[in-house]
Amino acid sequence: MTRITVVNPNTSDALTAVITEAARRVAPAGVQVAGARPTVGVDSVESHAEEAVAALGVLEQVRAHDAGSDAFVVACFGDTGVAAAREIASGPVVGMTEAALQAACLIAHRFTVVTMPPRTIAHSERVVRALGLEHRCSVRAVDVPVHDLEAGSVHLLGTFAAEGRRAIAQDGAEAVVLGCAGLADLVGPLGAQLGVPVVEGVAAAVGFAAALVAMGVGTSRGSTFAPVPALPGFRLSAVKA
Amino acid sequence: MTRITVVNPNTSDALTAVITEAARRVAPAGVQVAGARPTVGVDSVESHAEEAVAALGVLEQVRAHDAGSDAFVVACFGDTGVAAAREIASGPVVGMTEAALQAACLIAHRFTVVTMPPRTIAHSERVVRALGLEHRCSVRAVDVPVHDLEAGSVHLLGTFAAEGRRAIAQDGAEAVVLGCAGLADLVGPLGAQLGVPVVEGVAAAVGFAAALVAMGVGTSRGSTFAPVPALPGFRLSAVKA
Amino acid sequence: MTRITVVNPNTSDALTAVITEAARRVAPAGVQVAGARPTVGVDSVESHAEEAVAALGVLEQVRAHDAGSDAFVVACFGDTGVAAAREIASGPVVGMTEAALQAACLIAHRFTVVTMPPRTIAHSERVVRALGLEHRCSVRAVDVPVHDLEAGSVHLLGTFAAEGRRAIAQDGAEAVVLGCAGLADLVGPLGAQLGVPVVEGVAAAVGFAAALVAMGVGTSRGSTFAPVPALPGFRLSAVKA
Amino acid sequence: MTRITVVNPNTSDALTAVITEAARRVAPAGVQVAGARPTVGVDSVESHAEEAVAALGVLEQVRAHDAGSDAFVVACFGDTGVAAAREIASGPVVGMTEAALQAACLIAHRFTVVTMPPRTIAHSERVVRALGLEHRCSVRAVDVPVHDLEAGSVHLLGTFAAEGRRAIAQDGAEAVVLGCAGLADLVGPLGAQLGVPVVEGVAAAVGFAAALVAMGVGTSRGSTFAPVPALPGFRLSAVKA
Amino acid sequence: MTRITVVNPNTSDALTAVITEAARRVAPAGVQVAGARPTVGVDSVESHAEEAVAALGVLEQVRAHDAGSDAFVVACFGDTGVAAAREIASGPVVGMTEAALQAACLIAHRFTVVTMPPRTIAHSERVVRALGLEHRCSVRAVDVPVHDLEAGSVHLLGTFAAEGRRAIAQDGAEAVVLGCAGLADLVGPLGAQLGVPVVEGVAAAVGFAAALVAMGVGTSRGSTFAPVPALPGFRLSAVKA
Amino acid sequence: MTRITVVNPNTSDALTAVITEAARRVAPAGVQVAGARPTVGVDSVESHAEEAVAALGVLEQVRAHDAGSDAFVVACFGDTGVAAAREIASGPVVGMTEAALQAACLIAHRFTVVTMPPRTIAHSERVVRALGLEHRCSVRAVDVPVHDLEAGSVHLLGTFAAEGRRAIAQDGAEAVVLGCAGLADLVGPLGAQLGVPVVEGVAAAVGFAAALVAMGVGTSRGSTFAPVPALPGFRLSAVKA
Repeated sequence: MTRITVVNPNTSDALTAVITEAARRVAPAGVQVAGARPTVGVDSVESHAEEAVAALGVLEQVRAHDAGSDAFVVACFGDTGVAAAREIASGPVVGMTEAALQAACLIAHRFTVVTMPPRTIAHSERVVRALGLEHRCSVRAVDVPVHDLEAGSVHLLGTFAAEGRRAIAQDGAEAVVLGCAGLADLVGPLGAQLGVPVVEGVAAAVGFAAALVAMGVGTSRGSTFAPVPALPGFRLSAVKA
Repeated sequence: MTRITVVNPNTSDALTAVITEAARRVAPAGVQVAGARPTVGVDSVESHAEEAVAALGVLEQVRAHDAGSDAFVVACFGDTGVAAAREIASGPVVGMTEAALQAACLIAHRFTVVTMPPRTIAHSERVVRALGLEHRCSVRAVDVPVHDLEAGSVHLLGTFAAEGRRAIAQDGAEAVVLGCAGLADLVGPLGAQLGVPVVEGVAAAVGFAAALVAMGVGTSRGSTFAPVPALPGFRLSAVKA
Repeated sequence: MTRITVVNPNTSDALTAVITEAARRVAPAGVQVAGARPTVGVDSVESHAEEAVAALGVLEQVRAHDAGSDAFVVACFGDTGVAAAREIASGPVVGMTEAALQAACLIAHRFTVVTMPPRTIAHSERVVRALGLEHRCSVRAVDVPVHDLEAGSVHLLGTFAAEGRRAIAQDGAEAVVLGCAGLADLVGPLGAQLGVPVVEGVAAAVGFAAALVAMGVGTSRGSTFAPVPALPGFRLSAVKA
Repeated sequence: MTRITVVNPNTSDALTAVITEAARRVAPAGVQVAGARPTVGVDSVESHAEEAVAALGVLEQVRAHDAGSDAFVVACFGDTGVAAAREIASGPVVGMTEAALQAACLIAHRFTVVTMPPRTIAHSERVVRALGLEHRCSVRAVDVPVHDLEAGSVHLLGTFAAEGRRAIAQDGAEAVVLGCAGLADLVGPLGAQLGVPVVEGVAAAVGFAAALVAMGVGTSRGSTFAPVPALPGFRLSAVKA
Repeated sequence: MTRITVVNPNTSDALTAVITEAARRVAPAGVQVAGARPTVGVDSVESHAEEAVAALGVLEQVRAHDAGSDAFVVACFGDTGVAAAREIASGPVVGMTEAALQAACLIAHRFTVVTMPPRTIAHSERVVRALGLEHRCSVRAVDVPVHDLEAGSVHLLGTFAAEGRRAIAQDGAEAVVLGCAGLADLVGPLGAQLGVPVVEGVAAAVGFAAALVAMGVGTSRGSTFAPVPALPGFRLSAVKA
Repeated sequence: MTRITVVNPNTSDALTAVITEAARRVAPAGVQVAGARPTVGVDSVESHAEEAVAALGVLEQVRAHDAGSDAFVVACFGDTGVAAAREIASGPVVGMTEAALQAACLIAHRFTVVTMPPRTIAHSERVVRALGLEHRCSVRAVDVPVHDLEAGSVHLLGTFAAEGRRAIAQDGAEAVVLGCAGLADLVGPLGAQLGVPVVEGVAAAVGFAAALVAMGVGTSRGSTFAPVPALPGFRLSAVKA
């Protein structure tokens, strides 16, 4: 049994539950998924400042669950904290964004991320560029705040379908990548409306992390992701702004 | 149970067996691996001309095994025939090169392919560029013909270790990708010698293909990989050159 | 006298004649053009699977005509089989796509390929990327099947002109590259309608191949395109799909 | 008078003093430089995990000093926290890495960053790639920990000169960028030894920030760096690891 | 006091005055700005042929004013003659285009140059590509000749605002770079209309040049920009075409 | 008969004769080559400042010979003045650098320019980047001034062979591009020593220009290279520096 801990970088219990449940439904055979979220932090990650807070929460949760996890998945589009988590975790760490983009490469010539809200386009593009996929992937956004996903995302189907149709017509998209965690229940209906595959990154990251564990391959300790000696733990507490 | 057919594009039974066995040893739980190879073709793929022959063999085998396969893996560095196979196969098709490069991205900042023989460097670079990974991946080669792998590859440990050390010292490699199918028995000893992870592409492709099947995501039929209407079958026969 | 064999990778006699005649009309002085086509194969190349079949036909014809050819031109947009042909042919081999893109670079800052049908956009983009021309060249398509060209292409003038005007307005195109063999009779009328140069790739490839022959420069045998030892010949035969 | 606050992302008082003094010595006329450092954090930033901690410290200090600052400079190679700070600060925020690379572009065709220690090469390359300067800038490292700089850096002259000479000989470097804050006293002697300009990023960032203030140009609030509504403050406290 | 000579590459006294006055208004404290223009040349630079003439004028003026200048700014979008001027001038030389693009990088994720007239788009793109900024910067144009700026540019506000709004809507621009010298009086009103920062390149170049002088950093003499031995002076005279 | 004028941008009669003779020897059938050089200018082009002078000379000669030329070739590595000449000439204009790089693409996977002297590496790289060929082409230099070529270049065989061998060993070069006009007599002996093709740019440019003329394709007048209205002629005269 491969134990994968999915870390939701925001503090919403509702979203953590949505994400964890969705990951379980599509996890490969033999993969056990647990969810985690920071004890203190922000309730959604829609800016670089919130990413800074969330990254520390990711580190906290990776430390807390490392002993019981064969691998980690970071469930925030933009892959907040993933590089840092690689230095701390014993097993591999996979970001939902990088996994989604890689999965899309395996099934489509060109594809489009539809993220939310628009100010986070730069966060998606950061991962696209780190992977060198500018020639195959465009990034679009719908103007919806993340907390709208707490009760599921099916009410956003029309919004995502409209943007997906623009991606197909204008960008030549042959697949759509959902640019936020918590959208798993859109995969089926959106794919049906658009007629192209829809890729959900947490599912992809869980599958790819399981593959790495099965291969026996972990994070390289050669240089960039070598362990960090004597790093103290840190605790965040919120104060009046 | 996910059924994955690994197509070896050359006609060597020995290599097909080596590759299939290795894939089985590291396949994720719930994945059943079968091997296949063209009925007629070349006994190794070390040039573009041989790739042209091998690609037709890949198509032949994908057609032959499509009904019993949830996904295909093409086990030739350079991903010969993968785009064509995507148009023919019902389920997803993953090349060992693209999967190896993607897996390496998840565990290392920079990495190096060590392929064989040197004339195939361009074949690896073609996939590196299709994925946009020139900034993270260098390609090196050892001067060994593919048929040297028929009885296993441990006798090549010293050769690969020497090139791997050059990759680490000169290219900043933090992981090494084995640039040929049939090298799975090098993964352990080479990793031990080099102190960095060693990625075997057939294993990565099997794992990633299984992940796609678990996610329920298949090749996009939107445009590039739409089915090919009325394509006849073809049979190759060798003639005197 | 420089003898150039233009290999049409599909099996259409009509298209082979159209392409060969057109090449003769614009060949530089001192260049003798002959046409060839595979004995068995597909009657148009509009997918990766058909490319795999056609590539073998290109190899067959290069072998058959090598003794009487100073250079070869491959007359299929996407440059199917060109790399393989370089390993087999004694003289230089030029693809119509690479030559068209290079010619366009010499006369325009930005330009656009108009290919057909839309599913082959990825084939054109593969060559654009191999040459590094993404920053100067966009790829568009008209929805016409290749066999519509057998009796000439003037009936497509309106379709190509409409797409060409979009290329000029939206992509800043200063020249248009015809993205298929068999369109030579469009060069004049389309250029007249659009007011920008129209580049036909077979003509460009014939001219550039002749230039290489005049310079005395042939394919490098240094590594990638070294001869392939002991490659058997292959004969294709069609079977019921 | 333009007031620029230089935020040192680590907690070392000695380094903060070194950096602030150096910035004052080369600040343009009319620029008043103040130094700041996080109240809690790490005493050097040599990993992604430490960057995560330091980024929060940058935010804390930007909030604390925003009222009295016309612009901020972040004095950590890798530009930790700069994007987040742009969302919080009223005036422009300039990272020492981006400014150093831009200054080097204005005086040299190619140049090389010499950073420290080697595991942070990826941090420098992240900024190089965000600015698109891979074709002009290479990144090298010397194996020295950051805390070696607390009493100045002249003792490292030989080490940096050796690496700089390799950059000139092997990478064609025409200038050297010092890849860490706290190295300002190397600028003169290293430039004298190498015979090429040496660029110190804090000095460049102070100068460029002053230029932005003089131009009256601030961070765009159009999308990516719009203010973050209702972001609480956070306080870090160290705990036993 | 830092003395910066702004060289206007065309021969218009009116534009030289407009540019010099504007530069003075936004120059950082301690910077003294003088203007210069070629004695013979073209009265606007809107083509490569005119650039060739103007470049010689830039060299002439740099030679003439070198003794009294700590740095030079070249005030023509496209940075005509900047590389040559670096070889001749004793102090640093900054082009208005490179400085504008770099300033925009410090305040916006994506941005757009609005240049004039449309045929000079390629001139702007040349600088964008030299700096590697294709992924962050688009180039647009308004159809206005340069001599329309001799009496100021406020009459062009509507034209620039319309193009700027297209840049924001279609290219995701978060800042606009004015793609011509002589547009400084548009900065305020255009920024007010668009709601994003507007960057004027002469102002940016003056500020960045002053920063380089304050840092004590000059053009590298290592290779590309080494002095040119025994270069004679040249005088242009106009003849009937 | 196609009349091609080869413009040598420097004022050396000896080099003009060498270049013109060499071009004649390898010109395709039906191509008549004439040589030209500026009346006033520099006797070699080894810097950006000299390029500025030489570009004006190219314009002068293109104007003078336009009536009697079907096409122009600019015979200076770096393609000085080519863009400007395109605006002035009635027929196509081909630079020796762009043609050499394109020819090399048709015969080799990777190749290396060996230019002279080292300070002009940036000039070659400018063309490499304009064509997008960084992934296939490296640039090296030998430390020889251009006037060493006036009596032929065979005495430089050993120097070029040594650098060529480094290109093959370290850069994977499969062809060598001679990075200066006037080296045509090296093509044969250097190719023999290195065992890879050697590409001479003037020969390639003559061949490609002839191909464009045969195709009936000229410079696009759509935007970038539209005619320049009312450009006066200019005469250069040397003055004491």
